[in-house]
Amino acid sequence: MSQPRQLSLGAFLIRNGHHVAGWRYPDNVLDDDPFAVYKEAAQLAEAAHFDAVFFADAVTAAAGPAGLEPLTLLSALAAVTKRIGLIGTATTTYNEPYHIARKFASLDQISRGRSGWNLVTSDNASESANFGLPQHVPHAERYARAREFYDVVTGLWDTWEEGAFLNDKEKGIWFDRSKLHTLDHHGKYFNVAGPLNVARSPQGRPVIVQAGGSETGRELAAETAEVVFTAHPTLSSAQAFYQDLKGRLAKYGRQPESLKIMPGIFSIVGRTQAEAEAKFNKLQELVDPESGLALLGRMIGNFDLSPYPIDGPLPELPLTDNGQQSRQKLLTELAQGEHLTIRQLYLRIAGGRGHLTVIGTPETVADKIQEWFEQGGADGFNVMAPWLPGGLRDFTELVVPELQRRGIFRTQYQGSTLREHLGLKKPVNRYSKA
Amino acid sequence: MSQPRQLSLGAFLIRNGHHVAGWRYPDNVLDDDPFAVYKEAAQLAEAAHFDAVFFADAVTAAAGPAGLEPLTLLSALAAVTKRIGLIGTATTTYNEPYHIARKFASLDQISRGRSGWNLVTSDNASESANFGLPQHVPHAERYARAREFYDVVTGLWDTWEEGAFLNDKEKGIWFDRSKLHTLDHHGKYFNVAGPLNVARSPQGRPVIVQAGGSETGRELAAETAEVVFTAHPTLSSAQAFYQDLKGRLAKYGRQPESLKIMPGIFSIVGRTQAEAEAKFNKLQELVDPESGLALLGRMIGNFDLSPYPIDGPLPELPLTDNGQQSRQKLLTELAQGEHLTIRQLYLRIAGGRGHLTVIGTPETVADKIQEWFEQGGADGFNVMAPWLPGGLRDFTELVVPELQRRGIFRTQYQGSTLREHLGLKKPVNRYSKA
Repeated sequence: MSQPRQLSLGAFLIRNGHHVAGWRYPDNVLDDDPFAVYKEAAQLAEAAHFDAVFFADAVTAAAGPAGLEPLTLLSALAAVTKRIGLIGTATTTYNEPYHIARKFASLDQISRGRSGWNLVTSDNASESANFGLPQHVPHAERYARAREFYDVVTGLWDTWEEGAFLNDKEKGIWFDRSKLHTLDHHGKYFNVAGPLNVARSPQGRPVIVQAGGSETGRELAAETAEVVFTAHPTLSSAQAFYQDLKGRLAKYGRQPESLKIMPGIFSIVGRTQAEAEAKFNKLQELVDPESGLALLGRMIGNFDLSPYPIDGPLPELPLTDNGQQSRQKLLTELAQGEHLTIRQLYLRIAGGRGHLTVIGTPETVADKIQEWFEQGGADGFNVMAPWLPGGLRDFTELVVPELQRRGIFRTQYQGSTLREHLGLKKPVNRYSKA
Repeated sequence: MSQPRQLSLGAFLIRNGHHVAGWRYPDNVLDDDPFAVYKEAAQLAEAAHFDAVFFADAVTAAAGPAGLEPLTLLSALAAVTKRIGLIGTATTTYNEPYHIARKFASLDQISRGRSGWNLVTSDNASESANFGLPQHVPHAERYARAREFYDVVTGLWDTWEEGAFLNDKEKGIWFDRSKLHTLDHHGKYFNVAGPLNVARSPQGRPVIVQAGGSETGRELAAETAEVVFTAHPTLSSAQAFYQDLKGRLAKYGRQPESLKIMPGIFSIVGRTQAEAEAKFNKLQELVDPESGLALLGRMIGNFDLSPYPIDGPLPELPLTDNGQQSRQKLLTELAQGEHLTIRQLYLRIAGGRGHLTVIGTPETVADKIQEWFEQGGADGFNVMAPWLPGGLRDFTELVVPELQRRGIFRTQYQGSTLREHLGLKKPVNRYSKA
């Protein structure tokens, strides 16, 4: 008897949760030890058998004043978890591929095969000023660099074959030199000799994750990604994206199941509908105008909205080149279509920021997840808790058991690596002899 | 009653230990989970109240085929230790200061004030080829870049003042904007806007460690370092270095106790002298010519010695520009002075590599430590276990109690940060009002 297709679940963790006023929520933990909160959240997600925890990133305080760097954070979490996957973001725009290949390989060794790299290009213009560049790198160039960056990183990950380390104390042979290879990459952006100084990943190589929605971003994902995070407010939008992206795989010789699509879900869960709505209203009341304006300003392309009347309409804004064009367009249309004021618009996005949003009982949330999962909108979801850790606990304690009752989410881990949780094949090293 | 001056002890950890044949030693743990070994070693060092664990680094497989990257490794260790300091190496030659400032700040947050940065310039010529450079960066330029790199990193660490986060849920004030500063650094090598996106370090800032022995390296250390790791085979050499370096502090307005000098010590400890010597002989017998030649070749400036007769004299070698000139000179003089063959020379350095080497009982080792400590050779030692974890356990179980009996090493931690363990002052933020 074959098991029905299984959902993947990620815990997309942001300090204080995803609601812009989550930090003010009564039981949100807000102290000087941010790692303690992430540790509790990761252990909650692991106890619920999530596939992974996930951290976004930007190399500028403009995107969030003070947090932890994803690779150091995930490595610390690796030591206090056993099975859950560990996905971190690192930009290809302001990094060197040798460092990135090495850090994810090292995380993969420490976690015994649980690491994933969310390969992004930098979409926040203020990042360039922290790396000596006079202006933001244009979209097309960022993607060209990202494509080559991917080749270098995956090339370095193959420089050690599986089983290279013989550990033969008796004969004095530590490793088999014939299983060590150089890379000698020479390209437009990078020249990298190799080999990498970390052994081959226990899962073949770290899982490649992406989140770009632009035409170029989708094409890069179709060629190289194994998981894609995405944001859709409606099933029809999710279905269109899902079909489009899966449809691009064949020309790269890939099967549909080799790439998992995981939209975000922002849910506020109560034992009753009224309880869920009360939590939501409490959060919305805590949104102060300054934070609301800052959030909306960031989402529509780093504009300062403070000069405009907060209860007036959204002003006309030029399109940006900051990688958030699709979101900017979505929000502008939403405001125009529903005649929303600036305040109404920021309250609308204060939680889900354009992601699927469900406020309701465990059954309501599970219904929505199952609908998207079974009707071609998603292979899984990235769960965006509104505050931490209570907002995540509501999901793991109330929604997960409902998904398990329906037979679409695991009740225990079947494998030990992130790749195994996601149902992705272990890649073969390019140098391996058949 | 004032306590006598206290030693500092670091555990300088290398996979398989510091002896070139350590990996072949019977109880050296050699498996596919290197983190497990480091975790055991760090917990041993913490149980013995060491100040810190320390990891060297190079961004090339030429310096060691496969290990773990120090920042990911230290972050994982932060989660499974409580008090011990965590010192990692990161080169200023092939990194960007924003990333380095951020990663050590993040490690400092995760560990609640236990991180230290060993600021180095890259001395391995093969690293350049992993970062697109046609040739090794010359010594003088590496140091000029390192000096500016230090300014940027420490500047970024000051962009958040202490107490900036108010966490006032009631009033809706997360942090005090008047305690957030930009950097706006404009220099020869770097232009960095800031601010950093990690809050101020719990210990003011991570501890700055260095290990350079050249004239330029000593001057940089005198101006900027708080701990210096160094290698000396004899007390007179250690005393000369100690006097020289401490003597340079005054012109930078610094007190002698603001910089701690810690030579390495390679010890093989037995309950009797015969037991210690038996362990050492066992290790020496396990040195195969290939590893011995490779080690010696690396130490004298990355030369391939395999074409020369192994039982003949060391050939004449040109001086290198790889930052190991002082070590190359030391070894050449040693070989000439004692008429050593290539084989005899690599066996001579197979363990301590030019560091203080003691093979003996706990009393013998403690005598040597106490002598250097009390006669102006050292403020503490970096303990280089010959293999892991047994070689470290010999030190923590046999030598540490002897040092404690003599009243020169702590029997419990007094503070909670690395800076407190080392007896270093907490730096004042440049923006703080008196």
